[in-house]
Amino acid sequence: MPELLPALANRRARRSFAPEPVPAELQEILWRAVSVAPSHGNSQATRLLVASSPDVRDQLIAALSDGNRGWASAAPLLVAIASNPAHDRTAANRDGSERELWAFHAGIATGNLLAQATELGLVAHPMAGFDEPSVREVFGAPEEVRVLAVVAIGFPGEVSQLPDDLQKRETADQQRLPLDHLVVRDEWRPENSESFRGYRDAQRAKQG
Amino acid sequence: MPELLPALANRRARRSFAPEPVPAELQEILWRAVSVAPSHGNSQATRLLVASSPDVRDQLIAALSDGNRGWASAAPLLVAIASNPAHDRTAANRDGSERELWAFHAGIATGNLLAQATELGLVAHPMAGFDEPSVREVFGAPEEVRVLAVVAIGFPGEVSQLPDDLQKRETADQQRLPLDHLVVRDEWRPENSESFRGYRDAQRAKQG
Repeated sequence: MPELLPALANRRARRSFAPEPVPAELQEILWRAVSVAPSHGNSQATRLLVASSPDVRDQLIAALSDGNRGWASAAPLLVAIASNPAHDRTAANRDGSERELWAFHAGIATGNLLAQATELGLVAHPMAGFDEPSVREVFGAPEEVRVLAVVAIGFPGEVSQLPDDLQKRETADQQRLPLDHLVVRDEWRPENSESFRGYRDAQRAKQG
Repeated sequence: MPELLPALANRRARRSFAPEPVPAELQEILWRAVSVAPSHGNSQATRLLVASSPDVRDQLIAALSDGNRGWASAAPLLVAIASNPAHDRTAANRDGSERELWAFHAGIATGNLLAQATELGLVAHPMAGFDEPSVREVFGAPEEVRVLAVVAIGFPGEVSQLPDDLQKRETADQQRLPLDHLVVRDEWRPENSESFRGYRDAQRAKQG
């Protein structure tokens, strides 16, 4: 039986980074991985906001949540994932209602970025904890631009440099729903409605 | 210089499929690729709606847009990407406003699915052209479940079996924005505001 693609299987949202910068030629491959991501009607509405100068980097770090600022400031490369919804297409239902696709598209592009980074031996840790208006302001992005994630990228570092509580999370097993919760085969079943949190709590209760 | 990951570089939204089914063990690897995708707070709100029985498959094909129904009905495997937003977490800005993440998460999971499919030698073509309420109904999914894409999956087939207009699209080059439009380095520039459509039209006008 074939194996899961290592670029997917080996990805972890680690928080320890080596101080070495990410070379420009590796950065370019990350951008190209985003560039080849598909979008409905080939809209390509996703943009990458890269903190290059020390000043912009400091401002971006200041825009992160308190919980992320400490560990993420050690990452040599910080990139925000953004999109201009007005550049994107919507999809229409038969009743005329429309579905927005920009966040979904930005997600596919981010999946590509994470897989390519993992393949290059990099840690790439996406964060949702940031202040969106502040990130927009850091880069001078127009008001209509939406920011979906800030990704901390770098080579893996020494786990022992992290605070104790983060060291434990760094080496914890990946916790996932069983596949029969994830996959609906022909007909939705009660377990497909169970959230991961609900599943995990039920498992813990069983184990006493 | 390292190369772009083949699982990303070789992906194309092709429309010709061989009749061979996708073996169960390959399907399972696709589901596992989705399973390992990251989500904020490990919410894992994405679900895969897989058409297995001929009846469900026919109903799902009927829910596709007219433009997709023809070619996509030749794909041996049809999978809808869904999410339950209530299972997902939101992220908060400093002013208390919240950002939804479910569509972004489903996108990352879809990126994983497409990369893994490409790695296995499969075509995986995501479609936005479908009627969302109909897809929900096909699988008996609860009202709150959102459907983001239907992905047509199978081994590549003979391009010559497609109608003429689709044959041309099958072999066309991948058109992408230049990287300096995609990437904002420290400061947003006018070209970052240009849509792909605007860029393409400007290029065509230059070439007369």
